[in-house]
Amino acid sequence: MTQRYLEDFSVGQKFGSGRLQIDEDRIKSFAREFDPQPFHLDDAAGPETFFGGLVASGWHVAAVAMRLLVDSDLGLGGRGAGVAVETMRWLRPVRPGDSLRMEGTVIETRPSRSRADCGIVKFQITVYNQSNEAVLEATHVVMALRRGAAPRVG
Amino acid sequence: MTQRYLEDFSVGQKFGSGRLQIDEDRIKSFAREFDPQPFHLDDAAGPETFFGGLVASGWHVAAVAMRLLVDSDLGLGGRGAGVAVETMRWLRPVRPGDSLRMEGTVIETRPSRSRADCGIVKFQITVYNQSNEAVLEATHVVMALRRGAAPRVG
Repeated sequence: MTQRYLEDFSVGQKFGSGRLQIDEDRIKSFAREFDPQPFHLDDAAGPETFFGGLVASGWHVAAVAMRLLVDSDLGLGGRGAGVAVETMRWLRPVRPGDSLRMEGTVIETRPSRSRADCGIVKFQITVYNQSNEAVLEATHVVMALRRGAAPRVG
Repeated sequence: MTQRYLEDFSVGQKFGSGRLQIDEDRIKSFAREFDPQPFHLDDAAGPETFFGGLVASGWHVAAVAMRLLVDSDLGLGGRGAGVAVETMRWLRPVRPGDSLRMEGTVIETRPSRSRADCGIVKFQITVYNQSNEAVLEATHVVMALRRGAAPRVG
């Protein structure tokens, strides 16, 4: 994996991921641990609720989006730390068997106000299902090291 | 669990959760699946990176925040669907053994523009560690059923 520093990111830079499939067992086990609501736990309960069937927790989808991001050609893995997310929106339900991929664009880079060895990289991502329907979009704000900076310890 | 409808929420309403402890093995296994970066995977790699030790993925903390929310006295479980999150911020790292709890306040309720049987409830949450330091804050936007509405199927 290419690891990029602050200076390697530029506004307008595009990146993308491979695909990850979301299976029914993992939808249910994620929900049992983190989001135990009927429409994430039980195919039978699903039809009585908002979504007309079992759907993945939005937080499961958000976590999968993170995995797609780490594995993407953005190249921030191990050199950046998430600071914030702006306006994450769940646009469509994710159902068992859906296969997700991500596309993104860098929208801002600037020096950090709090850490001289770092800068802020902001990027917008959209996660699509196998029908190319957008299921999630979010703006991530990440602290990235400047080239030549040693990561701070402690 | 009390289940509330749109009409049961009011601006200024406070809610809170019990505690969940985050253990080291789960930090690592969550990261292996969703956020495989050195500072979430490996105590030894941690000190060389941003955080000076192993820390939980921000998406793990966000998922735990969802569990705290579902188990809280907000009472939205099974009757609401997340639409969006506004400005989620990770304020401090979460380390192995940290014990998290959540406090929240309803900040807006209004009819939905797209669904007559629903409304929007917006609330701000803060997750605290065992030292009462805020580790995450976020504004959640949720679709809630109106009283007497049948959930839509399909």
